[in-house]
Amino acid sequence: MPVPDPVALTQALIRCRSVTPADDGALAALEAALAPLGFRCERMRFEAPGTAPIDNLYARIGTGGPHLCFAGHTDVVPPGDESRWRFPPFEGRIEEGRIWGRGACDMKSAVAAFAAAAGRFIAERGSAFGGSISLLITGDEEAEAINGTVKVLQALASRGETIDACIVGEPSSSETVGDTMKIGRRGSLTGRLTVRGAQGHVAYPHKADNPLPRLVRMLAALSPGGPEAPGPEIDGGSTHFDPSTLAVTTIDVGNPATNVIPAEGRAVFNIRFNDTWTADSLGAWLRDRFDAVGGDYTLDLRHGADSFLTAPGELTGRVAGAVERVTGRRPAFSTSGGTSDARFVKDHAPVVELGLVNATIHKTDENVPVEEIETLTRIYRAVIEDSFPERG
Amino acid sequence: MPVPDPVALTQALIRCRSVTPADDGALAALEAALAPLGFRCERMRFEAPGTAPIDNLYARIGTGGPHLCFAGHTDVVPPGDESRWRFPPFEGRIEEGRIWGRGACDMKSAVAAFAAAAGRFIAERGSAFGGSISLLITGDEEAEAINGTVKVLQALASRGETIDACIVGEPSSSETVGDTMKIGRRGSLTGRLTVRGAQGHVAYPHKADNPLPRLVRMLAALSPGGPEAPGPEIDGGSTHFDPSTLAVTTIDVGNPATNVIPAEGRAVFNIRFNDTWTADSLGAWLRDRFDAVGGDYTLDLRHGADSFLTAPGELTGRVAGAVERVTGRRPAFSTSGGTSDARFVKDHAPVVELGLVNATIHKTDENVPVEEIETLTRIYRAVIEDSFPERG
Repeated sequence: MPVPDPVALTQALIRCRSVTPADDGALAALEAALAPLGFRCERMRFEAPGTAPIDNLYARIGTGGPHLCFAGHTDVVPPGDESRWRFPPFEGRIEEGRIWGRGACDMKSAVAAFAAAAGRFIAERGSAFGGSISLLITGDEEAEAINGTVKVLQALASRGETIDACIVGEPSSSETVGDTMKIGRRGSLTGRLTVRGAQGHVAYPHKADNPLPRLVRMLAALSPGGPEAPGPEIDGGSTHFDPSTLAVTTIDVGNPATNVIPAEGRAVFNIRFNDTWTADSLGAWLRDRFDAVGGDYTLDLRHGADSFLTAPGELTGRVAGAVERVTGRRPAFSTSGGTSDARFVKDHAPVVELGLVNATIHKTDENVPVEEIETLTRIYRAVIEDSFPERG
Repeated sequence: MPVPDPVALTQALIRCRSVTPADDGALAALEAALAPLGFRCERMRFEAPGTAPIDNLYARIGTGGPHLCFAGHTDVVPPGDESRWRFPPFEGRIEEGRIWGRGACDMKSAVAAFAAAAGRFIAERGSAFGGSISLLITGDEEAEAINGTVKVLQALASRGETIDACIVGEPSSSETVGDTMKIGRRGSLTGRLTVRGAQGHVAYPHKADNPLPRLVRMLAALSPGGPEAPGPEIDGGSTHFDPSTLAVTTIDVGNPATNVIPAEGRAVFNIRFNDTWTADSLGAWLRDRFDAVGGDYTLDLRHGADSFLTAPGELTGRVAGAVERVTGRRPAFSTSGGTSDARFVKDHAPVVELGLVNATIHKTDENVPVEEIETLTRIYRAVIEDSFPERG
């Protein structure tokens, strides 16, 4: 039985230009590694009006419980200006002991590591290990997340297939692999702000109504005062959560004429909020600030996720113990960072997130040390072993 | 001697589709009206790398001083969607007592009115009126203004030809023809601000460096506090000038991903400044404000024009007196509005701007009442008469 090599499989996945919603062969490459291990591989394709159709891969070995699921994604964020990368972002080049490329940390290597860990486990214990292991891999995590994990989980639930515990392979670690696992996540809210005025000639500003000073003041009202504060803190945090953060992600007017005052300006911002807020209470907080500036504006809010928490217990202890056995260090429990598909899983099964160091994710020159992929593979294998202890 | 009819000549000029840099026969039509009056007509063609070659017409009668020059242009701004015009923009149709078409106010009719005024004056006084009259007409005023008036003036200066007073025929009037003349103009400075940071994931703002809060604070530092202020006033005005104005014309980031903090943001603004500033002092004022916010930024300043003032004195009094004799009202002296070729003339001769009502310039359905062309012709003739008083 050919057990996948996690490094080679990571490279194969990086070579697929799977910027959401593109797949470019990524799921097929993974399926080619899993099928020989005995996984039953099922493609689940979902679509919805106004979104791109997305392929998902659900691969399971075993039929009974307990059922351990690994959830992840093969889609990646865009590479930006590829000429600014040291190495081509879709080549999977190994240099200086690292794999370089988009998805190296988030999270093609974690998908490869879990496939390799399952392969090594099955090679040792056989397919009758007393339970089920599955991989739920989507191509729709980085963008809309509409046709991905949430719909696969719904499909499994509707046919009576249950999951007992789930590991999401997101890059949870901070300095070294396994130093941090996520037991919860903040919620996410995206705001689209449009401010309107009246066009005119720059030489006659009193005959126009420039919306941009109002837009600037509305955005300034969301930002803290000092140059040292990278993102505003809109609360002081809670027992398990850091303070909420807000980031303005784009401002766009698109006026090419330097002698014309534009009629409209638009901005987009994203808030990652803890359990002291709901989307509704945040919306009221925002409108208070924008109303104070005044004028004609619209605020369109898209609610990405509420915050959630898997309280410390059996699953968190099992995973933390496996990490400690491999690395010698017990992981910290964290609820910081972005949203992940764990927000969907938490409605179906206890879930934690455990993966690589997230220092370079979504950045130019995203990379991962080759040895950390091997470490993560051993961690995942230890989690699998502790989930299916040998009887006797 | 055939004295030009100002209305027919306006129509002939409007029928030339002379959108910068095209001429389409406009200068030839004017030359055909001036040559029979005794004007020596000279074409001056200029070009420069990256610009279209431009024909200019310099027509002079007389050899000695004083030398009165009329400066104007036959090029026009584009008509936009021609189907939205009530009458075709290059037909010169007369309806409802008005001439309709692109250039009707800015400024083919003023060129025609001056040619007609000069013709009437010469018909009465002969060509030995004791001085010189010239028309300096460019086809490069509305766009780059590189191969037009500025180069003609340089060519005249380099061959020792001097000008004693200049009337620029820009549409200076506000409600009725002759109610306002410009004795100066504000300067123009365009700034392109780029603020740089480091890209990253919105969920980890402390690992990225979002440039947008700094960009917003830099732009806020240029704006006044209150919602009632349409454009910031950066000074209190001066004896002859209104307060300077600043308009942010665009802000562009172009980041489509709502979960990514961008690496860079850009804004463009334009300042119309009075005689309390120079481009250099404004640059220092801007950098002070941006440095106070800090971080990595570049500011690219393009200096469109300095402010200038022809202080009230002999020329302004002569022109105002001529207007009052024709209309019964003394014109207001103004320094408001955009830039014009007077910014080049002021380095060579005292200059004022006097022309038609500017309400419809650069707009769909640009038009001028026929009777105002006749009024402007009589005003220009009075200015010429007062410039060359009969002896004895």
